[in-house]
Parts: sequence; C-alpha cells; structure tokens
Amino acid sequence: MKRTARLSALALLLLAASIAWAGGMTAPSPNGMTIPEGFENWPVISVSHRVDNHTLRVILGNDIAVEAARGGKTDPWPDGAVLAKVVWKERPEEAWPDAIVPDKLVHVEFMHKDAAKYAGNGTGWGWARWLGPELKPYGADVSVENECIDCHVPVEERDWVYTIPARFP
Amino acid sequence: MKRTARLSALALLLLAASIAWAGGMTAPSPNGMTIPEGFENWPVISVSHRVDNHTLRVILGNDIAVEAARGGKTDPWPDGAVLAKVVWKERPEEAWPDAIVPDKLVHVEFMHKDAAKYAGNGTGWGWARWLGPELKPYGADVSVENECIDCHVPVEERDWVYTIPARFP
Repeated sequence: MKRTARLSALALLLLAASIAWAGGMTAPSPNGMTIPEGFENWPVISVSHRVDNHTLRVILGNDIAVEAARGGKTDPWPDGAVLAKVVWKERPEEAWPDAIVPDKLVHVEFMHKDAAKYAGNGTGWGWARWLGPELKPYGADVSVENECIDCHVPVEERDWVYTIPARFP
Repeated sequence: MKRTARLSALALLLLAASIAWAGGMTAPSPNGMTIPEGFENWPVISVSHRVDNHTLRVILGNDIAVEAARGGKTDPWPDGAVLAKVVWKERPEEAWPDAIVPDKLVHVEFMHKDAAKYAGNGTGWGWARWLGPELKPYGADVSVENECIDCHVPVEERDWVYTIPARFP
C-alpha cells in the first residue's frame, strides 16, 4: 500500500513536470531544481571576466541574496539566498575594440542556499546549470552537482561562493 | 521685477538643493541631473571590461530602458529610458586569478533619454557622472556634457549608446 502511494505520487509529479514543460516552462535540472521566474531582472551582485575561457559574467541575486550582499552578511549566506550567474562568450566592441562585451549566451547557473535541505552534498547549496538560449538542463543525473562543487572547492571557506559582492554607492 | 523674480526662484532652488544635500541626498550634477533613487537595483542591460583602462562595468536600466532592451526596441531608445553605468577598477580574483573582478568603485554615469528636453546638446540624451563612493558630482558646469558626448561620437548612429543589450534567455 505504501509503495503504491509512493508510485502514484511519483507518477503525479512526473505528470505535473510534463505539463509544465509542455506549457513552455524550462525543464528542471536532473536534481529537480528549476529556474526562478524573473531572475533576469534581479539586481546585480557582481560581474567578472574570465580571461582563461573568454567569457563575461554577471552574478545576480534574489531579494534575500541582495540584502545579504549589500549588508555584508555573506559569511555564511542566509538560507533562501539564490545566486544566478549568466555567462556569455566575449567579443570586442566594434566601436571601441578595447572594450570586451557579451556575445552569445553560453549558460545560466544557479546556487540555492538551504543549509538543511542541501546538507547532503556537503555544501548547504543546491547547484544547477542550463545551457544556451534554449536552456537545456545540464547533466545526466543528480551527480552533476559534484562537477559544480569540485570547481568551488578553492572557496569552501567563503561558503563555497567565488563572488565577493561588488561595491555599490 | 522680472529679474527679482528670477533671482528669488534661483535662491529657492539653491535652498532646496542645499536642504536635499544636507539631508543625505547626493548633490546634483552641474547640469541639474540627479541620481535616480534605487538605480543600484535596476536590471542588467549588459556588462563590459575595458582592458585599456582596466575597469569593469555593468550597465543597468530603468523599466522603460529594460523593456526596450529586451524587446529590441533601441533604435532609437524611447523617451524616459535611463541607463546607469557603474564602473569599478579591476583586480584578479585571488581564488581564480584568471577571473577579473571589481575592486574599488570609480564612478557612476547616467544617460537620460528625452528627445525634446535634451535636443539642445544635439543628442536627445542628458548626461551626468558622479565620482567614487562619495558620489561627488563631476564637472564644473553644464559644459561637462560635451566631454561625455565627445567620447560617444563613434556610436552616434546607435542613438549615442555604446551598449548593445546582452542576450538573456
């Protein structure tokens, strides 16, 4: 009986996901994370230019993340904080070639802070990436988080976040 | 009589500006422009890295500017659009030295589009800059706009705007 209930719940979940997806929503990441609606209008936490892989980035935050960033309360980041990173290939600006500006969208990435919910992966953050303008979920299964985490090990002491909030007036 | 009225109006204006300034607001630019409240939380139009003067930039927009940018309606930009540019000195990120990230705040700059109001300077935009975290108005008098405009002549055909909006998903 318990098993049947569980299977029914799973079937309902899959059905709901299919309906949402068919309705034009982006497919969830293999770990179940979804793209927060309206994230592209969130305020800026910082920007960066990776000269090793020729990409420009902007890091945005939801209300909780921005309040923490502007108030210097990011050690650790509070539960509920969500960071979004938008990554573009670089190109020189034609009218000012010494200015490097965004070209094609490469991917968008998210970190969701919830110390209890994401305790299992050892970071307290949920991690996900979607590729290209079509926002294709990245990774085959939930282990995709390990790839994100491996790259963030150098900033484990900064609550796993590379971004130090930029100073605004 | 007319002259007295004008002088009184000027005195009132100066008084109002002093009160506003004393109240913690930022002093206006020599051309009378002021910093839009809450601009630091506006959505992103684009980012750039000027490798000639070692600065990173984010370009933000008010609602009218963002709607125009996301909808590809920037030729020309609509009246009421305001673009804000926040400029930081660059530094390498310690934990990932090939990532160039913001250091000190250099200045914030604004372009206000109003074809009629700003027809006089030949661009249809109002221009202003404030220096450093203390937001000191830049320039001695209204002619400061010419400095901004001179630098934007190469993009006169783009409605005087360097920034081509970055592609968001």
